[in-house]
Amino acid sequence: MIRLRGFQKLVSVETALQTFLGTLRINPKETSSPLHLALNRVLAEQIIASTDLPRTNRSAVDGYAVYADSTAQSTRQRPVTLKVVCKDVINENQAKQVWTGNSVSSRADAVVMLENVKLYGDKIDVSSPVTRWENVSKKGEDVRKGQVVAERGTRLKPQHLGLIAAFGIAEVKVFQRPKIAILATGNELAELGCKLQREQVFDTNRTVLCALCSELGAQTLDLGIARDNVDEISEKLRLGLMKADAVISSGGTSVGGLDLVPETVNKVGKPGVIVHGVAMRPGMPTALAVVKNKPIIILPGNPVAAMLSFDVFGRPLLSRMLGLKRAEARPLSRARLTRRIATTLGRKNFVRVHVLQKDNDFFAEPISARGSSLISTMTRANGYVVVPENVEGLEEGDIVSVHMFDDLEA
Amino acid sequence: MIRLRGFQKLVSVETALQTFLGTLRINPKETSSPLHLALNRVLAEQIIASTDLPRTNRSAVDGYAVYADSTAQSTRQRPVTLKVVCKDVINENQAKQVWTGNSVSSRADAVVMLENVKLYGDKIDVSSPVTRWENVSKKGEDVRKGQVVAERGTRLKPQHLGLIAAFGIAEVKVFQRPKIAILATGNELAELGCKLQREQVFDTNRTVLCALCSELGAQTLDLGIARDNVDEISEKLRLGLMKADAVISSGGTSVGGLDLVPETVNKVGKPGVIVHGVAMRPGMPTALAVVKNKPIIILPGNPVAAMLSFDVFGRPLLSRMLGLKRAEARPLSRARLTRRIATTLGRKNFVRVHVLQKDNDFFAEPISARGSSLISTMTRANGYVVVPENVEGLEEGDIVSVHMFDDLEA
Repeated sequence: MIRLRGFQKLVSVETALQTFLGTLRINPKETSSPLHLALNRVLAEQIIASTDLPRTNRSAVDGYAVYADSTAQSTRQRPVTLKVVCKDVINENQAKQVWTGNSVSSRADAVVMLENVKLYGDKIDVSSPVTRWENVSKKGEDVRKGQVVAERGTRLKPQHLGLIAAFGIAEVKVFQRPKIAILATGNELAELGCKLQREQVFDTNRTVLCALCSELGAQTLDLGIARDNVDEISEKLRLGLMKADAVISSGGTSVGGLDLVPETVNKVGKPGVIVHGVAMRPGMPTALAVVKNKPIIILPGNPVAAMLSFDVFGRPLLSRMLGLKRAEARPLSRARLTRRIATTLGRKNFVRVHVLQKDNDFFAEPISARGSSLISTMTRANGYVVVPENVEGLEEGDIVSVHMFDDLEA
Repeated sequence: MIRLRGFQKLVSVETALQTFLGTLRINPKETSSPLHLALNRVLAEQIIASTDLPRTNRSAVDGYAVYADSTAQSTRQRPVTLKVVCKDVINENQAKQVWTGNSVSSRADAVVMLENVKLYGDKIDVSSPVTRWENVSKKGEDVRKGQVVAERGTRLKPQHLGLIAAFGIAEVKVFQRPKIAILATGNELAELGCKLQREQVFDTNRTVLCALCSELGAQTLDLGIARDNVDEISEKLRLGLMKADAVISSGGTSVGGLDLVPETVNKVGKPGVIVHGVAMRPGMPTALAVVKNKPIIILPGNPVAAMLSFDVFGRPLLSRMLGLKRAEARPLSRARLTRRIATTLGRKNFVRVHVLQKDNDFFAEPISARGSSLISTMTRANGYVVVPENVEGLEEGDIVSVHMFDDLEA
């Protein structure tokens, strides 16, 4: 166990995450879902094309299916005349009317567009040649039978649902949504809607953490607020571990007088706290624990640190629990820093920035803030830049990768 | 009405959208939601800070609240000794213990960190000076009373919920989720899960369009499949207009033999079709209509064209119906084209690309496809580049803005 008294030594973000995930066996359960309700669910099966797509050669336009060869000599002056027939199999001197999407009859190999023929009676004049397979969507040109249509572990976006629907599949195997229990700790915390007592503040972290879990597609279980005492914390932890697949708490992690949650977790079960104190800023007092193979993330009470530390540890954990084939990161945006930022050597720094587009270029404006605790900085920012441990600040004009948590112009 | 027979002349995307939205009066209704259920809802009120945040001067660390001046002369050799008291108001020779987040007593103006004092009995030795307001989060430094906390029309992300929660607000006004009726038309279409008859294909567009609307936070009403006849289409259109706030259909828009949906819309009500035929590729046969102030988007049957045209017309429409203060665009990514792409002059071209990150740079690989109808291209791509009407193709190495509809590494 990497437990560091008083945070004398901090564990790197990478080691912390690896140690944490390495201690867990994560096997998300499977269930099934009607396809039309499977948006944003994670696919628990590999979908293989059961047929070619298109299933047959199909016309890509409205027109006449023909033998390409029979139009080869046609010109405006000397059009080729073909007889329009209704049967499926045509010969060299025949044509069959087709609408977009219709099968092209078995021996035709091109379609003349409606605009390029003159119809009289049961005959058409074709005034320019078509090449072989012109205006034809060939059997299997979209997807070949046997091809992988969607991988197990894919987050199902509208386009995946569309492609799966093309094979007539009405129900798919998906992973069950993990249930995450959310706990806030602290004597100072008050429920929303109440009248504040002296020294109290409203609890914001439960609302935010529930939302962050929901955004990823997890279910949440609200454990409420625990006062700063071992009994109350352990009771709620036990409930969370019983009813949910993981617990995320905030508060009670610092090395000051009230380092309660990690200590209580160790009393609740084995192996207990795996990591306590991470070389990141903000988020340093984060602790990671496992009890009876259920993960517990103990986030700092500071709301900004809690959100950023959730991104660092919660997202990869939930990605695994959701069954995703790889961790789902925030979308990245490349942008130019508008001014230099100072960071702390030896810590992975998470610097909030506001990215905006100007003259077809992207700029990242660091959000100035005296303290890391200012929750308003998270709504003024729309992303953050990660500055590695061995870099001391970034210069104005540097191109940075921004992890976006809100829209560009927000 | 801009109706162009046989698409002799096409309307630009901008004119089409402006004409369409200009014909509509959109006034989304308001409702209320508990804050913890308001994720991704759109705020229907402006939230003003009812108090300063923090409400009082608070300690940012665990330590002792002091007068900064009284520590000015302290050194390691000659520490300043202060008496620890429990009362709220201290004098120059006193200190009060505080934990992170505690109010700093009314006359103290700095906090000495726990690590920097030596406690013996009821006295502490301070061995280095603190400056005024050091380790103090000042009243109002996060948010000032009266400041706008969140604008009407904001999509509520976790961080907005957090900031609103900080004021103890347990319920917010949000816009009602618009209901969008989805219709597919075409004799060739079969329901998922059925056995295909000859010439039939499975209907993919309803699944995709429902998902695209749900993704934005709209409710959907599935109108099913209408055969290619006026009665069936008009019956379903009327039902959609009665039960929903907008109708989105796919199929039956081309100028071939079966240009049924726009014609039927004109029979159903006024003003009817506003735009038919847009200078875009794919998506050209898109029609936009209004009946009794309810919008109807008539998308092409081609699944790729339907998805892209939904992005162009459906997203801005739904953004307004959702109450968003500005249209919600796809996230943009700047990337370097890996090879040249040919496009059609006079059309706004939507070119599917796959964006990937390599060596800290982003590359956009055009997805090669013979036809625009290949639905698999939408899962191989993760975004699209918009090439304006007056540009004939883009060169290898050009930096382009990619509208991302899936993750970077998808």
